[in-house]
Amino acid sequence: MSSPAPDPADPVFQLHRGGKLAVASTVPLASREDLSLAYTPGVARVCEAIAADPSLVDDYTWVSHTVAVVTDGSAVLGLGNIGPRAALPVMEGKAVLFKQFGGVDAVPVCLDTQDTEEIIAAVTALAPSFGGINLEDISAPRCFEIERRLDEALAIPVFHDDQHGTAIVVLAALRNAATLLDRKLGDLRVVVSGAGAAGVAVTKMLVAGGVNPGQVVVCDSRGILHADRTGLTPTKIELAALTNADGRRGGIVEALRGADVLIGVSGGQIPEEGVADMAPSGVVFALANPTPEVHPEVAARHVAVVATGRSDYPNQINNVLAFPGVFRGALDARASRITDAMKLAAADAIAGVVADTLEPDAIVPSPLDPRVAPAVAEAVAEAARRDGVARA
Amino acid sequence: MSSPAPDPADPVFQLHRGGKLAVASTVPLASREDLSLAYTPGVARVCEAIAADPSLVDDYTWVSHTVAVVTDGSAVLGLGNIGPRAALPVMEGKAVLFKQFGGVDAVPVCLDTQDTEEIIAAVTALAPSFGGINLEDISAPRCFEIERRLDEALAIPVFHDDQHGTAIVVLAALRNAATLLDRKLGDLRVVVSGAGAAGVAVTKMLVAGGVNPGQVVVCDSRGILHADRTGLTPTKIELAALTNADGRRGGIVEALRGADVLIGVSGGQIPEEGVADMAPSGVVFALANPTPEVHPEVAARHVAVVATGRSDYPNQINNVLAFPGVFRGALDARASRITDAMKLAAADAIAGVVADTLEPDAIVPSPLDPRVAPAVAEAVAEAARRDGVARA
Repeated sequence: MSSPAPDPADPVFQLHRGGKLAVASTVPLASREDLSLAYTPGVARVCEAIAADPSLVDDYTWVSHTVAVVTDGSAVLGLGNIGPRAALPVMEGKAVLFKQFGGVDAVPVCLDTQDTEEIIAAVTALAPSFGGINLEDISAPRCFEIERRLDEALAIPVFHDDQHGTAIVVLAALRNAATLLDRKLGDLRVVVSGAGAAGVAVTKMLVAGGVNPGQVVVCDSRGILHADRTGLTPTKIELAALTNADGRRGGIVEALRGADVLIGVSGGQIPEEGVADMAPSGVVFALANPTPEVHPEVAARHVAVVATGRSDYPNQINNVLAFPGVFRGALDARASRITDAMKLAAADAIAGVVADTLEPDAIVPSPLDPRVAPAVAEAVAEAARRDGVARA
Repeated sequence: MSSPAPDPADPVFQLHRGGKLAVASTVPLASREDLSLAYTPGVARVCEAIAADPSLVDDYTWVSHTVAVVTDGSAVLGLGNIGPRAALPVMEGKAVLFKQFGGVDAVPVCLDTQDTEEIIAAVTALAPSFGGINLEDISAPRCFEIERRLDEALAIPVFHDDQHGTAIVVLAALRNAATLLDRKLGDLRVVVSGAGAAGVAVTKMLVAGGVNPGQVVVCDSRGILHADRTGLTPTKIELAALTNADGRRGGIVEALRGADVLIGVSGGQIPEEGVADMAPSGVVFALANPTPEVHPEVAARHVAVVATGRSDYPNQINNVLAFPGVFRGALDARASRITDAMKLAAADAIAGVVADTLEPDAIVPSPLDPRVAPAVAEAVAEAARRDGVARA
């Protein structure tokens, strides 16, 4: 493999010199007086107040608006297991997006371990420093247990964006596509290609959103998940039991026969013949980056609505539509968790931003649309309060 | 104990609303083009380059100018063991000072454990995220082992400011006081009151700087450390063997008889009769905050040079004179450690800033003096290169 040494003329490397983040003071520090308020002796009074009433940490420190973006570098973009140091530019980019779109301060935390117990211990240890934990680019199946156990252990929101951010935006896009095609979610036959982090979460979110679980077929690299498959992880066993009521078998081509919807979150290539066999007026979301599982122009020959993860085609399914507003809303409500209802509310809010201007090529807002994050935040905060997990 | 609920009119609490820090993007993010450089797909090229050559993390991420300020909240200011959440305002203040004086981006990390092994494991896990680790407000004696083991384990600088920041500034101040009094460090009889983090480090730094170890007497809460004391921690055994060649016994009053220098880093109160028995033209540094071990006006009746940790008396011995420049220099040199030579260089640089304007009431620069951090950084970076621990 050739060594991809940086080309100094490459604008990407020029932009990345010195990284993409800085920490800024939000208080003046020009005089001894300033110092005596922001630091000793004044700061001691704030410490004493929090020691007596720990809830005050939300009022008098930055935790109420700060999340950690935590990775072990095991599943970064399409690059795979590149480790924590090589993952850092992605985490810095995530932090930039959190701040730009959600007004959320985010700190990259790249862990030098891929052991489930060590990751859980490290995040548990640093949790008092933050108001929420965004897990990122941690490979399946470890990511499911890590998220679940941290969610149980911590009193702050824990959210694996590769799972739920993707799932939220997919649900939003599918709601709008179904509306355009005058279909009900509950009547759709859906194929999910991929049973990793995104595939599992997408499947569960679509079901929570109204898709009939028996009418969902999930494919992993060995083919359709069904109850007689052997050697499945606990998560895949769960999925096989939840989905595929007809007991369909075979590969992706068999799965797609007569399907209304294909959600591609597997990478790799799905043969055109499979897409050609889908039901009329179908929907294809081919979300692998940079190479969609089905080329959008190929998909467009066979289905009515096409989306990808790419910015150079219409209908970009981009997680940035979700995570800034989801955390903004959770932090605003001082929610202890991000519940399924909060995720569903986020999906509805995203869909709602473009509900009045739906077109086959416009089923989701642009990632840069400034209306999205505030709408999502408000919906998520309200859902937190209804769910009884909010303190504000 | 009364509950110190915050008075909303108190300017300290008003200043602290929402905390004192924020994260800022240092790159533009206004257009899809910006997004494609700072995030996907452009960022993938940076990740690939670092995966192939990990040293590039220093050029293309923020680690080269970012440190973690790590505490377990076990020894915060004069408040003691208040835990991680209540410690956070101090850590945020530290981060503000790092940025203001050293241009160093600093992130508070408040750990929800006080177990030595768990602390070491957590900091080791998050180390790829930072260019250095500043340990803060971790109680003795655990802090010695924690710092030592992290220093061994990590390839980035690890520095417990309560130990070495204090010690560096004390050495700088004592050098200048000795110069003023036309004395050599090696001829001074020194009493160190306190054998915790600061006392241990001060003792070792003064010896490294030229004080005769046999002429140092260290007192803990039970009195003078000597070789026949029982029940001593390993660090105190080391100190007892290093110091007190005359085998002096007793309490602080016995220790001070005929001493030239008193360094108070114990808290509590040292009786005036002890200070009155010091040698002529003595030096008292009474550094407990907010209540010095000896009131400066009392000390001034008996000795020639007086310093405290307070901002409302002359000669404020404030760690902010050291830690920003120490880390700035270590980061500039891409040093893997902060060596003793680097600490000594820092002390000399601090002393040097006011060497031409020495007065009994002006033996150290003001904490706000902008000349200090750059001078310290330059000296520390050069010392790193001479010590062979620098990569730049």
